[in-house]
This record gives sequence, C-alpha cells and structure tokens, in this order.
Amino acid sequence: MAELLYQGKTKEMWTTDDPEVLRAVYKDDATALDGLKHDVFQNKGELDAEISSLVFEYLMKHGVKTHFIKRLSKNEQLVKKVKMIDLEVVTRNIAAGSFCKRYGLKEEGEKLDTPVEELFMKSDALHDPLMNESDAIAFHLLTHEEHEQIWEISRQVNQLLTKLFADAGMLLVDFKVEFGTLPNGEVVLADEFSPDNCRLWDMETKDHMDKDVYRRQIGNLIDVYERVLARLKDALAKED
Amino acid sequence: MAELLYQGKTKEMWTTDDPEVLRAVYKDDATALDGLKHDVFQNKGELDAEISSLVFEYLMKHGVKTHFIKRLSKNEQLVKKVKMIDLEVVTRNIAAGSFCKRYGLKEEGEKLDTPVEELFMKSDALHDPLMNESDAIAFHLLTHEEHEQIWEISRQVNQLLTKLFADAGMLLVDFKVEFGTLPNGEVVLADEFSPDNCRLWDMETKDHMDKDVYRRQIGNLIDVYERVLARLKDALAKED
Repeated sequence: MAELLYQGKTKEMWTTDDPEVLRAVYKDDATALDGLKHDVFQNKGELDAEISSLVFEYLMKHGVKTHFIKRLSKNEQLVKKVKMIDLEVVTRNIAAGSFCKRYGLKEEGEKLDTPVEELFMKSDALHDPLMNESDAIAFHLLTHEEHEQIWEISRQVNQLLTKLFADAGMLLVDFKVEFGTLPNGEVVLADEFSPDNCRLWDMETKDHMDKDVYRRQIGNLIDVYERVLARLKDALAKED
Repeated sequence: MAELLYQGKTKEMWTTDDPEVLRAVYKDDATALDGLKHDVFQNKGELDAEISSLVFEYLMKHGVKTHFIKRLSKNEQLVKKVKMIDLEVVTRNIAAGSFCKRYGLKEEGEKLDTPVEELFMKSDALHDPLMNESDAIAFHLLTHEEHEQIWEISRQVNQLLTKLFADAGMLLVDFKVEFGTLPNGEVVLADEFSPDNCRLWDMETKDHMDKDVYRRQIGNLIDVYERVLARLKDALAKED
C-alpha cells in the first residue's frame, strides 16, 4: 500500500513497492508570501512536472547527479528516496526579489559580477532567514563536505541551465534548488526545477516568465508556464 | 595639522604627522537600535580605550596581527593607517541576541556545537543585514583571500580571548570585530575590542557585562565596564 510520506505546498511524496523509490505527485497549488497567498490553477501540476522532468533529464545527460528516475504520468515522477538536506539553496546571477530588498538595491536587473550563493532556513514562521555555512553546520543541517558538494552541483546546474534557457530566449536570473543524500552519503540534486522556484526573464523584453507573475499579480501563470515549456522544448530539440 | 578623517558613533580618527599613522579618539557616546538610541556616559571613552588597548596588546603578544601601535592618552590610541574592510565580522560561541531572533531560538544561552562566523553589511538603514562570502564578494567588499584571512584571524582571536575572559570569570558569548588591509595587502585586526562590541556573561551568575546592560536597560554601563576592566587587569597580571 502506497503511503503518503510528505505533504508539501505543491507536491506529495508517496512510497512505492520499491523501498528505495518514491513517487512525486505535482499538485495544482500555487503559494506565495510564506504560504499566506494560495490559489489553485488547473494544469499547473502537469506543467511543473513536465518542465522539471525535462530539466532534470537535461542535467543528468550532462553529468549532474540527481534523484530523478523518470516521469510516470502527466503530473507524477519516480525519484530515488533520499534524505533531504533541509535548506533552500539559492544561486543568483542577476539581482532581484528579496536580495534587492535585503541590500537596499533600488532596482532589479543588475548583473552580479560573480554569482551569489545563498542558503535559507526553511521556515515560513521566520520568513526563511538567510544562513551561511557556519550557521547551517551549527544547526546540524549539513556538514562542511555536504556544503562543498551542494555548491559544486549548483555551479554545474547554473552553467548548464544558463546556457539552456539562453537558447530558449530567457535569462536565468536566479533559482532555488534542494538537495538530498543517497544511502551511500552521496549528495544529489532533488526536489524540482520549474518556474515555481526560479526567475526567468524574456531576454529581449525582460518580461517575467516565472512565479513572479502570480506573486506580483502581473500576468496569467498558466499562459506563462506554457510559454516556458514550449520554448524549452524548442531549445532541447535544437540541442539534439 | 591634524585632520579629522572619520567621525564614527563612538570614535574619531585623526591624521598625524606620520602619513602611515592615525590617532583614534574614543568618545563617551553609547548608541543602540541602529543609532536610534543615543546617550553619553562620562568616562566611557577612557574605559573602552583602556580595555581595547589591553586586549590588543594581549592579542599581539600572542601573534595576532593588528593595526594597534600604542595607547597615547586615557582615551586615545595610535594605530596604523589601514584600508578598512567595510564589514562587521561576528563570531558566536553561545546563541544570543539577533541570532536567536533570526532563527527562532526562544532562549539565549545555548552553547553552539561549532562557533558561528557571520558577516554583516554596515548599514543602519538596512539594519545591518547578514551577508555570506559570495554576497560580500559580489559587492566587492572583500576578496576570497581576504575572507580566508579575516576568519583565520577571528579564530585566533576567539581562542585567545575565550581563554583570557574565562580567566577573568567571564564567558565570551560573541564578538564583532573589523579588519583592514595594510599598504602591502596584509589583512590585520582593526577597530576596537570592548564591551561595546562583544557579549560577556559572568561565568557563575550569567549576568550581562557588556553593552546589553545599556541596550536592554538592565544595569549601569559604567559600573559594568569598570568591573570588566578590573577583572581583565587581574587576569592579565596572573598571566604574566
């Protein structure tokens, strides 16, 4: 009997017959403002699952180690069971969002001379506070070696996806990923990669093509995610 | 003619006849709450200057590189002119203050399993936001090599002063220091070390013996600073 292991805001994780494999179910929910804003958009789960599956397949094809096994249905994936590292791992190429607010930058869009790499504690109540390596180690959220590994993988992901999204006419402004460890201790990319947890701007118009259209009420989320998916498919087709 | 190079909340920096040497004047001012709270306490400047001079002399005797040359008068020091690294460099041994608030710890006083090392942007308007290495590098506040050096020195300082203050019957809970670079590029400890920018708790009673007595209005700042100085002198006398 499949058992619900984890109920998240936008995903459920279920056990399967194989104890080393889980089933991820992408839901149609969208949330923002530390969970205070919540809506349901028909097909959102499918779109996120498809985009994330394409991105993970692309990353694995280029040597990135992930938890991904395969897309199972429109809104389901099979993934390796990992022990999640309980941190949000954010890479920023261009200043936007909370980064601008925190450091008093008046406008979004400044290209950072070197990518910024930030960890955040996962806590709606505390508004996901920034942490550095020593904070996270003191709280036993990861080890120094795991910290090295998550940034090695994040840099690989940033390099590969900056190019892929550029081929799709989009700027990868920033992204949030999560990591887990396999039973052998190896760190792998886990969770998802979709417009829910990255910022993508149209390369020409700088229009937002990510969850900011929902967060800031400046566009139709489903239309935008469909455009991202279509462009991503085109870019991947050219790559083959 | 001596020229006022820098007017801080609690210190002035003046030029001297030697272009490589500055005169630091400790003022009687105390401030808190991002500068919103401000008072003047007679003799505070002298106490800070004397405590900081003793601490810097002790650190240098044990091999720490600093900007300090000598105490010039009750509230003045001669220091080497350095290019300041515009960051607050905080080491925490025990959870207290903003650290507890940020990460939702209900009580102060938990010993951290590993010391926490944090950088803060100096900005009252932004409430001195936390930064990590990559943030500070992206803002050109320091280089990776300087980051390595400031933590190497901070760890040396933490080790030496944890012992010194323990000999004086006090717990070194946390401290904020600042760094500068000499003309040859070498990073040295700069600014000051006084109860203004560290937390010291009585080892037995856990009473606050630092600026928290002013910040939180729980004691007489001058009385407390005088006790810190007396204990420090005793501990240093035993050490000789």
